Amino acid sequence: MARFGDRVIERMRKLGHPLCIGLDPYLDRIPPPFRRGAMGARQPETAKAVEEFCCRTIDLIASDVAIVKPQVALFERLGWLGWQVLEHVIHYAHAADLLVLLDAKRGDIAETATAYAQAYLAPDAPCGVDAMTVNPYLGPESLEPFMVEAENAERGVVVLCRNSNLDSSVYQAAETTQGPFFTIVAASLARWQERLAGGHTGWSSLGVTVAATHAEDTEQIRVALPHVLFLVLGYGAQGASAREAVRGFRRGPSGLEGGIVSSSRPILFPAAQPNLGAEAWEQGVRSALARAASELGEAVV
Amino acid sequence: MARFGDRVIERMRKLGHPLCIGLDPYLDRIPPPFRRGAMGARQPETAKAVEEFCCRTIDLIASDVAIVKPQVALFERLGWLGWQVLEHVIHYAHAADLLVLLDAKRGDIAETATAYAQAYLAPDAPCGVDAMTVNPYLGPESLEPFMVEAENAERGVVVLCRNSNLDSSVYQAAETTQGPFFTIVAASLARWQERLAGGHTGWSSLGVTVAATHAEDTEQIRVALPHVLFLVLGYGAQGASAREAVRGFRRGPSGLEGGIVSSSRPILFPAAQPNLGAEAWEQGVRSALARAASELGEAVV
Repeated sequence: MARFGDRVIERMRKLGHPLCIGLDPYLDRIPPPFRRGAMGARQPETAKAVEEFCCRTIDLIASDVAIVKPQVALFERLGWLGWQVLEHVIHYAHAADLLVLLDAKRGDIAETATAYAQAYLAPDAPCGVDAMTVNPYLGPESLEPFMVEAENAERGVVVLCRNSNLDSSVYQAAETTQGPFFTIVAASLARWQERLAGGHTGWSSLGVTVAATHAEDTEQIRVALPHVLFLVLGYGAQGASAREAVRGFRRGPSGLEGGIVSSSRPILFPAAQPNLGAEAWEQGVRSALARAASELGEAVV
Repeated sequence: MARFGDRVIERMRKLGHPLCIGLDPYLDRIPPPFRRGAMGARQPETAKAVEEFCCRTIDLIASDVAIVKPQVALFERLGWLGWQVLEHVIHYAHAADLLVLLDAKRGDIAETATAYAQAYLAPDAPCGVDAMTVNPYLGPESLEPFMVEAENAERGVVVLCRNSNLDSSVYQAAETTQGPFFTIVAASLARWQERLAGGHTGWSSLGVTVAATHAEDTEQIRVALPHVLFLVLGYGAQGASAREAVRGFRRGPSGLEGGIVSSSRPILFPAAQPNLGAEAWEQGVRSALARAASELGEAVV
């Protein structure tokens, strides 16, 4: 097994685009063919609907993307039944030869951070994934347990750095004596970038979030972290273009590379009207995926 | 049912101290009477050991404290079996008439944040608790879904603001044009403090973390947020004294009040030698609890 950074970039080179599909099973948006009456927490029928929706989505997209990004919150909302579903969906994605980046945004300190890291990145992780997102608010050292597990198992860690929601700027873009706040976070990650990098020229298995909606900040982060993978937020639903999404990518053997561009709702829920039948929904997913892949493919040429 | 802020303060007035016990079932520290061979994820026997350890701890402490704080990571480490245990432990604590503050440190945006909030604070939450901790890194608006659920169900939200681990200062104490970074976070919470406050003189159901190891920062946060509850970190294991732990508390009808002082390891794992029998462990827990309660009780007189 190669390191996460190499694996994901290698697959994207072959596919010709950096698109990642967010698996976001919002209960109120799951199309009718999967629904079983009223949807709510604690209901096995709801958990089953979420599972079938995610697995059918995986069937539809598996040959056209490198990686999927399940959003933990939407499984956690269902209690332990949701965790059973999440384990199954991860397993199903792996069986379909997809990489899995878990959008968990976990963060804690010391032994507690170790417990979170081991839950997802350790060899005996109950929800073992290829990479996970983490929140840095408790300090750079708080991230070490995630880096240790990722390094040992050749997995990846994506640190929240610059986000795409407008309001994240209140904290992340606050002016400090060292520049905007996110630049302090980025600078503090340089040593992890090196530690999770395979060699001098390879991509690191460390990632950071960047916002396609703040492309000038992306350039600053690229200067601070030349080998880091970007998890690009804000493409599609939040209005950023494909060109903005690949800012800070670098020229590789088959085009611009160095990031994972996430899109979820425009692909999972492609129609304005929510009452799609199975065939119309599947057709909508395929079309939306083809459109995004082609748009991003042109942007990385 | 009264608001969380009133409930927790009322109980602490009766008990005469602000001690909260962190329920942190570190696998490698659980005493021998609860262990069943090698402990590891995915093993029902391990989950059972964690459950019995937590429930027996609750038996020992229930009449002497107002609130417990389970650390989610240590349950999550065990996969869906761990979530079943966490639900049971929360239920057991409630049955023992304890309040439960879940140390979840969740944070996300918009509908995803809503899913996290509903998982713990909604009326149909599978893991319903009295309050939970949240991470603000994604911006003040990202906290709104937690505030909405808390307000509707009279529950509480504790926002990470100033933490006690040394390294958290790299980000939280970064100098900005508006003061140290944590003061920006504190200032942005003023409206939530008001929204979760019952009246002009009551305590809010909004809490923030403060570090007993940075007591001067605590005073600054108290000025910015006069009615907020403190979740005080760093007392005991991290070396802060009882007097430092109650900095920023205000005089109430039965002494200083306005915060929840957390302690976990010195109480759960009271002995230097790990191979305690059941009786010695129980005696150790009782003694450590009595000592901390008395020390904090004297500090709030």
